[in-house]
Amino acid sequence: MQTNGLDIIITGGTLLTMSGKMEILENPVVGIKNGVIVSIETTAGHCNNSGTAKEIIDASGCIIMPGLVNTHTHLPMVCFRGMADDLPLSDWLNHHIFPAEARFAGKKMVYAGALLAMAEMILSGTTTFCDGYFFEGKVGEAALQTGMRAVIAQGFLDFPTPDNPDPLKKMTTAGRFHADWKDVSPLITPAFFCHAPYTCSPETLTIIKEASRNAGLLFFIHLLENKDEGETIRHKYGKKPVQLLQSLGILDKQTIAVHCNWVDNEDMAVFADSGVKVSHNPESSMKLAAGVAPIPAMLKRGIAVGLGTDGAASNNDLDMFREMDTAAKIHKVVTLDPTVMSAETVLKMATIGGAGVLGLADRIGSIEVGKEADIIIMDMSSPHLTPLYNCYSHLVYAASGTDVKTSIIGGKIIMKNRQLLTLDVDSAMENVRKIAADIMLS
Amino acid sequence: MQTNGLDIIITGGTLLTMSGKMEILENPVVGIKNGVIVSIETTAGHCNNSGTAKEIIDASGCIIMPGLVNTHTHLPMVCFRGMADDLPLSDWLNHHIFPAEARFAGKKMVYAGALLAMAEMILSGTTTFCDGYFFEGKVGEAALQTGMRAVIAQGFLDFPTPDNPDPLKKMTTAGRFHADWKDVSPLITPAFFCHAPYTCSPETLTIIKEASRNAGLLFFIHLLENKDEGETIRHKYGKKPVQLLQSLGILDKQTIAVHCNWVDNEDMAVFADSGVKVSHNPESSMKLAAGVAPIPAMLKRGIAVGLGTDGAASNNDLDMFREMDTAAKIHKVVTLDPTVMSAETVLKMATIGGAGVLGLADRIGSIEVGKEADIIIMDMSSPHLTPLYNCYSHLVYAASGTDVKTSIIGGKIIMKNRQLLTLDVDSAMENVRKIAADIMLS
Repeated sequence: MQTNGLDIIITGGTLLTMSGKMEILENPVVGIKNGVIVSIETTAGHCNNSGTAKEIIDASGCIIMPGLVNTHTHLPMVCFRGMADDLPLSDWLNHHIFPAEARFAGKKMVYAGALLAMAEMILSGTTTFCDGYFFEGKVGEAALQTGMRAVIAQGFLDFPTPDNPDPLKKMTTAGRFHADWKDVSPLITPAFFCHAPYTCSPETLTIIKEASRNAGLLFFIHLLENKDEGETIRHKYGKKPVQLLQSLGILDKQTIAVHCNWVDNEDMAVFADSGVKVSHNPESSMKLAAGVAPIPAMLKRGIAVGLGTDGAASNNDLDMFREMDTAAKIHKVVTLDPTVMSAETVLKMATIGGAGVLGLADRIGSIEVGKEADIIIMDMSSPHLTPLYNCYSHLVYAASGTDVKTSIIGGKIIMKNRQLLTLDVDSAMENVRKIAADIMLS
Repeated sequence: MQTNGLDIIITGGTLLTMSGKMEILENPVVGIKNGVIVSIETTAGHCNNSGTAKEIIDASGCIIMPGLVNTHTHLPMVCFRGMADDLPLSDWLNHHIFPAEARFAGKKMVYAGALLAMAEMILSGTTTFCDGYFFEGKVGEAALQTGMRAVIAQGFLDFPTPDNPDPLKKMTTAGRFHADWKDVSPLITPAFFCHAPYTCSPETLTIIKEASRNAGLLFFIHLLENKDEGETIRHKYGKKPVQLLQSLGILDKQTIAVHCNWVDNEDMAVFADSGVKVSHNPESSMKLAAGVAPIPAMLKRGIAVGLGTDGAASNNDLDMFREMDTAAKIHKVVTLDPTVMSAETVLKMATIGGAGVLGLADRIGSIEVGKEADIIIMDMSSPHLTPLYNCYSHLVYAASGTDVKTSIIGGKIIMKNRQLLTLDVDSAMENVRKIAADIMLS
């Protein structure tokens, strides 16, 4: 094996490729150079010249797998984590979250919250996230600092927001955000996010989708999170939400619908025909009592589905391992069928599936030669992961974020033996504690 | 404050008493002597003679709370963790679990599995568990070694089992088990467990309940875990399962019904009238697609409910923090009401509530003077627990077992700074790996 000049070599352990063939390799040697996976071999025992790489990582007793892809979150909302729980949705939103956002969701909070959220995500195995919030550029700046891969989606609403007091200037905002972020880093992908059909007018939806299309960007929208959304939209527009979006020309392969708890068979047929993709956030929708999306039915129709945590105000953590566990279990009990949403299906959803939803499946989501090196290494030597019959089962039903030992994003080691290398976790926590102290005083 | 001669003093941090008044004390000083909580004060800053205790634990920045009570598990089944998942229930039981138990569930497996399970439970904050399995005495021996508080329930079935080849000798088995364990340790409480109405005849149920009553022991039974159990029992006996048990005189304050996913209003009225208590195991019932117990309705009727993980073959972990998170969320989405099963309600269920179900509420489940010292200390200085507005929310929705730093059971420090002090975790894992290797070869 030729290892001269490699940046990183990972040896030993068990490699879950999550490739199309779902190969599992024992004692692999994974070579990384210039951010890319350049070699995968299985000759660990015979590799005598591995010392020529700048960094050798011994993964004996570990699982090597693609980093997790969180397809939907609102990172700065970690500042509101646990601030108001177990409340009716309208009370939670109108008397707690919206007022707190109106007062505190400035650039400082967004940056501080995003940084803390990234610490939490890296520590729990996420390497790529898709975020939507106010002042989204500050989330991008935090991602540049931490080295995380990010889709940053500028949000749009019809009422004035902290970062966009004049909603009429949407096209200007959109154009500036795209210009600011389109070529900043290969790790950052800008996108647009219309909040929901009940907060964005047909005109807003149309012009932002048009801007997305012209710039070649992804378009996100919360859709049918709650049961009453269908009735609200039908009452206002005489159409079901999915019909409304379809009639406006919103639905295509570059559109990602988030939640989709109340889609019916007709809606799913539209998704399948138009190529709309879905972000599934089961824990948030359970905690908010919003509903359970019919994901097994979507998968049967061939709809692409990724997994997400949603924001920490409605979850209340950003641990994709816990999200996988819940995703596997909730659909089994709702359908009374223990065979749906197998561990393998859910792990795909959190890796290569999520990458596909974010339009990144040609670059990340699996460990294959030529792909960018977004890799996590899981320590499997713990009582709760013993014995080990099936890697997929353990990762979905028993592992948690704290079992992640090392994380590599774009070929750069971001966490090593649970030490974060690109951010100061103590000051990240302290900065958010100060913001929370202000919120508590308000 | 008089601290002379104390065994342990815990100072600093935030104390969640989980007492009837749910007091929360900042900077407490908790004194422990001879296994009992002898003093709780809030004068940390003025405590100059704390050095006279044998052990001083600084809990600054931590939450001090009662250890968690797992009201239902089958510990040795950690040996089958992840062996067979995502299968139809009958396939899972008849082609995987039952054959593996028939071949491997001997004394050696039970002891090794129980020891590993206890390592996992201590590491994730459980201090008391209730177990039911074959060779239950070996679980008791493992508990004596680890210092965990345990209700060990000898199991009964009508077909021959590895530890009871002649099911006709039930009374002898029951009598011997009681005699063997009744006075061994204040930490160990023997009990009896009839598997289910569909695996135990009315005669078996009657004689084992009679034996329980005579010995003053708790009587456990799996009840209405799956939807078809109602039909099976009605077809066989012309009665619903709860009616059957009632007619046999099984239902009283010393009976704990496990699962109860398919109880109806009439059944719940019987529970409330008779004082039957319930063990709720949401993750297992979700993964097996068994059903969701109507816990909010039970609580409204005043039925005592504790939380449990069930065995690791159907969960697949024993982490009560994850179980609490799921318990809080599943009922919200099933009822579409975000106010049910609040974090506080669920935390009670996992502490003082579980203690009540196991008949131990006068001794454990809260931190009050005179109670036995079963205490865990949670490290709250992590990104996923920052900021901190509400302790109950964080413990239920964001914390995980790995946030437990120190554990005390009956006044003895069992884990300190995540180091297990009463068992060798590496050899516990190695012993179960060897058993799993045999299972894989079979």
